[in-house]
Amino acid sequence: MQFSVTILGAGSASPALGRHPTAQLLTYDTEYYLIDCGEGTQYQLLKLKLRPSKLKYIFISHLHGDHYFGLVGLLSSLNLGGRTEPIWLFGPRGLNEILTLQFKYAESHLRFSIHFTEVETTRSYQVFENEQLTVQTIPLQHRVPCAGYLFREKQRPRNIIKEKLPEDLPFEAIRQLKNGQDVRDETGNVLFACDDYTHPPLPCRSYAFCSDTRYEPALAELVRGVDLLYHEATFMEDLAREASERYHATARQAAQIAHQAQVKKLLIGHFSARYKTLDGFLNEAQAVFTNTEIAEEGCTFAVE
Amino acid sequence: MQFSVTILGAGSASPALGRHPTAQLLTYDTEYYLIDCGEGTQYQLLKLKLRPSKLKYIFISHLHGDHYFGLVGLLSSLNLGGRTEPIWLFGPRGLNEILTLQFKYAESHLRFSIHFTEVETTRSYQVFENEQLTVQTIPLQHRVPCAGYLFREKQRPRNIIKEKLPEDLPFEAIRQLKNGQDVRDETGNVLFACDDYTHPPLPCRSYAFCSDTRYEPALAELVRGVDLLYHEATFMEDLAREASERYHATARQAAQIAHQAQVKKLLIGHFSARYKTLDGFLNEAQAVFTNTEIAEEGCTFAVE
Repeated sequence: MQFSVTILGAGSASPALGRHPTAQLLTYDTEYYLIDCGEGTQYQLLKLKLRPSKLKYIFISHLHGDHYFGLVGLLSSLNLGGRTEPIWLFGPRGLNEILTLQFKYAESHLRFSIHFTEVETTRSYQVFENEQLTVQTIPLQHRVPCAGYLFREKQRPRNIIKEKLPEDLPFEAIRQLKNGQDVRDETGNVLFACDDYTHPPLPCRSYAFCSDTRYEPALAELVRGVDLLYHEATFMEDLAREASERYHATARQAAQIAHQAQVKKLLIGHFSARYKTLDGFLNEAQAVFTNTEIAEEGCTFAVE
Repeated sequence: MQFSVTILGAGSASPALGRHPTAQLLTYDTEYYLIDCGEGTQYQLLKLKLRPSKLKYIFISHLHGDHYFGLVGLLSSLNLGGRTEPIWLFGPRGLNEILTLQFKYAESHLRFSIHFTEVETTRSYQVFENEQLTVQTIPLQHRVPCAGYLFREKQRPRNIIKEKLPEDLPFEAIRQLKNGQDVRDETGNVLFACDDYTHPPLPCRSYAFCSDTRYEPALAELVRGVDLLYHEATFMEDLAREASERYHATARQAAQIAHQAQVKKLLIGHFSARYKTLDGFLNEAQAVFTNTEIAEEGCTFAVE
């Protein structure tokens, strides 16, 4: 079951040539989840041959433009493309008001509905659930209300031991075994015991997206043990004071959270335009947490 | 005196890979005038090495996203860049309300002021004037209120006949001659007669920008004789009916306006994403009006 994150943009608010503002596409199985949507996100999707029409769920962290100015354009294009299936949109107070006003003046009558959920940004709680995933908010320390999102895979199915089972076993029986149930005959006798024909499922995977935030040690508890942590690193330690004043973090601080939370892997992004190369970020973070990578645009990172 | 138009985007509403939505940068002397501002315009400016900080005047034709969704991002970036000089913004009702709402939720306190002028879209009138240019609105026939803009150079200076004048003539005397005045001594005697030392000025140049509009023969009168006419050509004649239903024009119709108005040169743009190449547009228009060019992104067209 694919569980991965594709980086559409990892720049910060001031535009830098060749870097796009924040947007990520999470793929679970065949489903797309968009996380933040900076200006130009719809063009980045097209460039990477990721079909915007497949989108169903959109999570916006906060209302600074580099995290959502591309949303109204993306939604408008979906409408022009003839979309009728609803979109589930999550974001802070004000997002829906802004979209509504823009659609009003464009006299756009959307053919699809937008189910908007206003996200609270001061506490951690489950804001979404479907058959695949749960999503919890992560309160972040930023200049405006801002939430990160923790995507957690639900219980994974047990693994069938194929060589033990008859080839013509009905699909329903396989489904029962995968879900941990024995397969029984009409009178209730066990035909195939789950424990005999399956291995236990692999542990559930998780991805934490921590967009703009000041260094906040308490964050480690909320993302403890995740497989992949994205944490912003707008500055390096040379500008630690500016980072704090502007409610941003340094590469070293991102790595400290990763280390304290004992995550498996760290991704850093949201780099200030004043840094022309990114090597320094990687070196600074890896000195504290080795398994760090740059959230490079166009790259896909497996959650595993 | 440079007077030119650089095409930042000439696509239409549905995004097409490699085409950007509408935006143009008019340059007069050293001054920039931005006309429409589709998503990604600030990145296009950077890519073409046109400094956004030099912008002072912005004209928006209408509130369909492919003509203004890049504006709030551009203004936000100017603010982050430390701008303090005001911006003069022209556009239909609602534009200022949308920007104000977005800045409110971003808690952005702009360091520069935006002088917004709400443009009437149902009549032609002078909406702007400075030392260089006048700008008149052009009412267009679109699904929402929509104005084109006619940029007209003011009276140009007379041309000095250099070989006749002494080399050390003071700057003030040259200025008088260029403005059509004789240079006199303290008692009022003519030292240098304007007619003897200057040629008459060249005729004033003009550029008409007609963004989204249905074919409207009356338009020809409003843009009569301009040096450069930009007229949308979203479709070709094979989709003339769809063009009309959607309040757009075909390449042939754009050329008909150019022909009727006896303009010097026609630029066509706003091409529908369904056309993969643009050769057909050019052929169709040139059959009616020979001096037509495609508004190709990144190209600069002189107004002459």
